[in-house]
Amino acid sequence: MNAEIVAVGSEMLTPERVDTNSLYLTAELNNLGVEVVSKYVVGDHLELLASAVRLALSRSELVILSGGLGPTEDDLTRDAVAAALDRKLVYHPEIAEALEQRFARLNRKMAEVNKRQAFVIDGATILPNDRGTAPGQWVEESGAVVILLPGPPHEIKAMFERQCLPRLTRLVPQQVIRTLELRVAGMGESDLDQLIAPVYKKYQNPATTILAGAGDIQIHFRARCDTQAEADALLCEVSGPIEVLLGDRIYSRTSESIEAVVGKLLLERNATLTVAESCTGGLLGERLTSVPGSSEYFLGGFITYSNALKTELLGVPLEMLAEHGAVSKPVAEAMAEGARRRAHSTYALSITGIAGPGGATEEKPVGTTYVGLANANGTEVLHRQVLGDRARIRMFASQLALDFLRRKLSSTKV
Amino acid sequence: MNAEIVAVGSEMLTPERVDTNSLYLTAELNNLGVEVVSKYVVGDHLELLASAVRLALSRSELVILSGGLGPTEDDLTRDAVAAALDRKLVYHPEIAEALEQRFARLNRKMAEVNKRQAFVIDGATILPNDRGTAPGQWVEESGAVVILLPGPPHEIKAMFERQCLPRLTRLVPQQVIRTLELRVAGMGESDLDQLIAPVYKKYQNPATTILAGAGDIQIHFRARCDTQAEADALLCEVSGPIEVLLGDRIYSRTSESIEAVVGKLLLERNATLTVAESCTGGLLGERLTSVPGSSEYFLGGFITYSNALKTELLGVPLEMLAEHGAVSKPVAEAMAEGARRRAHSTYALSITGIAGPGGATEEKPVGTTYVGLANANGTEVLHRQVLGDRARIRMFASQLALDFLRRKLSSTKV
Repeated sequence: MNAEIVAVGSEMLTPERVDTNSLYLTAELNNLGVEVVSKYVVGDHLELLASAVRLALSRSELVILSGGLGPTEDDLTRDAVAAALDRKLVYHPEIAEALEQRFARLNRKMAEVNKRQAFVIDGATILPNDRGTAPGQWVEESGAVVILLPGPPHEIKAMFERQCLPRLTRLVPQQVIRTLELRVAGMGESDLDQLIAPVYKKYQNPATTILAGAGDIQIHFRARCDTQAEADALLCEVSGPIEVLLGDRIYSRTSESIEAVVGKLLLERNATLTVAESCTGGLLGERLTSVPGSSEYFLGGFITYSNALKTELLGVPLEMLAEHGAVSKPVAEAMAEGARRRAHSTYALSITGIAGPGGATEEKPVGTTYVGLANANGTEVLHRQVLGDRARIRMFASQLALDFLRRKLSSTKV
Repeated sequence: MNAEIVAVGSEMLTPERVDTNSLYLTAELNNLGVEVVSKYVVGDHLELLASAVRLALSRSELVILSGGLGPTEDDLTRDAVAAALDRKLVYHPEIAEALEQRFARLNRKMAEVNKRQAFVIDGATILPNDRGTAPGQWVEESGAVVILLPGPPHEIKAMFERQCLPRLTRLVPQQVIRTLELRVAGMGESDLDQLIAPVYKKYQNPATTILAGAGDIQIHFRARCDTQAEADALLCEVSGPIEVLLGDRIYSRTSESIEAVVGKLLLERNATLTVAESCTGGLLGERLTSVPGSSEYFLGGFITYSNALKTELLGVPLEMLAEHGAVSKPVAEAMAEGARRRAHSTYALSITGIAGPGGATEEKPVGTTYVGLANANGTEVLHRQVLGDRARIRMFASQLALDFLRRKLSSTKV
């Protein structure tokens, strides 16, 4: 089965925006064995949209639209698909009522325009939206399926997963696609590729894709076979030697984030964590607490952006700051120790660095980063020179800290 | 003049890749006054590609393709455009010769497949490529233009700038595009649209686009006129009444983030800020410090994820936590006051809430959020019920806090 994806919205035709919903949809469709053969971004324009839908339907069995289901007059997806299929739009008072109740629960009155969202293409199945006001629609048309989904990422994901996946699974001929993902920290992309390319280049199936973030690399393998056993055997054949080559630089084989991996390691060891952040300003804490249930091991932390707070909250000696500067090994050490002492945690991580663009000196260029890790046995400090802009340096620094702790925890017994 | 952009290549139909050439092309076209009304990503497939080109040509005067001009059998752009225009491909021995010389200069022998790159659509102008092997093509067809460009970003940019811009400038009627962006906090998308639609709906030009994030809305106006003065006058005509309607809910007219706006207000008032975060775990600090130079006004903060740290670091009374719970008005108040007192800042913001998925009770559902703001005159607390998943609730909560402070600062004298 082939699919085409249409992202609706003039804002995605500006020089600043890309459509990212289609990436999520593509991953989900590929898992089902469905190939995406074309993608479109179309502005809020009835005729352009309708003709894109007609073209997609003329050649593919599945057409998925995202966006343009809102309450405003710019939201034309309903009308355009109805036009492309030559069907009417039918007003569903029960949708309008449910919307009114939703607003009432929030103690708000529904705006009259929201009634536009109660129009459904004749013959379509309504897909409830429990995360927003725009219901989705599932329309079958002579063997093909057109799906209308809302644009906001958290809405489209929930609706696709709950409403569309089960229906599509029934429709799609069984082929098996199995994937494996390795996540790697502490290595550059070109070094990694040089190391593992001799292995994966030998195989067309599984297909291998390498994605690099700030201090974080994902290796995706995708095998497509008639049976699950075949696919799994192929995945093993390729990933086995690569896992040996990469060793403990692999932090996850299950798509888990490094935040979640660190959280599990802490939990298993009954250990707690505090952070002391300077240049990252809260990013490390934010990442750790993005994991639901992180309150089980994460106590909190100190954002000591100013030198005064480093001294006052963490006990970093004034003379140390004067002698070595805030971005230095002794200060990273003192920050981690201070955070651990004040918060009574098993571990404490500290970050101090120069994220730029200002603040650099000759000896300490933009990107200079120190990460401290304290526990009952003492404190270690890592020093790295990070490349990139402010956002990348901060993300890289938080990644260094998480990986530092991960390695430490992995080497200690449960 | 309207344009459509077709990115060619199956690799851009994977879950990991997006087409970014079109962003560069869009910016350049907009500068010429050309609107991009549709974008496509099409795999390496002759028929799909040809039909996309046919559709684009049926409605727009300019169609630009990027990629698929390489030497392999997967590179089908030449063939597809020739098919769409019903023209022949003509072999140009002089292109093949130039390629052979290029390879010779690198002391390499040209592979036979590279001769594929010497085929040109009948009647097309050849666009030389001084950065790679694939020449581009410029084809005119009954008033419309189709341009074939190579895929690698440094090749497409050089070729577009040197070969296409001068030609397009001659073709495109001189027009000016001017834009204005308003950023709004503290309002839902549908409420906002209901309020301002009666104004902007009266105008096709400027075009108005509304983009909604978590507690953050951007309104983009784009005017297209013969002269800059006309365009600016039109922008004023539409945005003026809208600015009056939205009043102080507008936090920026210059695409500035709310973090940056708050930073400027603090700086002007010579004021400093600290944060005390529970459910956001550092996100508020992270956002504030994403602004270069934020150390001028941001001192730091407290991530008090555990109740123990709320008491120990911020002095929130144990009895208060027991009686009201950590997510409550008095605790938000005590957190803000504690942070301000301990860090000696002019202002302190606190956030406590239930980001979910766990932790909810009957009286305090997921999304319950309190934001505290303390200064020398006392402490105010805002209570909101936020919808969405963990990530959205946390982002919304940080937005509420930033906007709360922005309003407070705007109402105090410099």
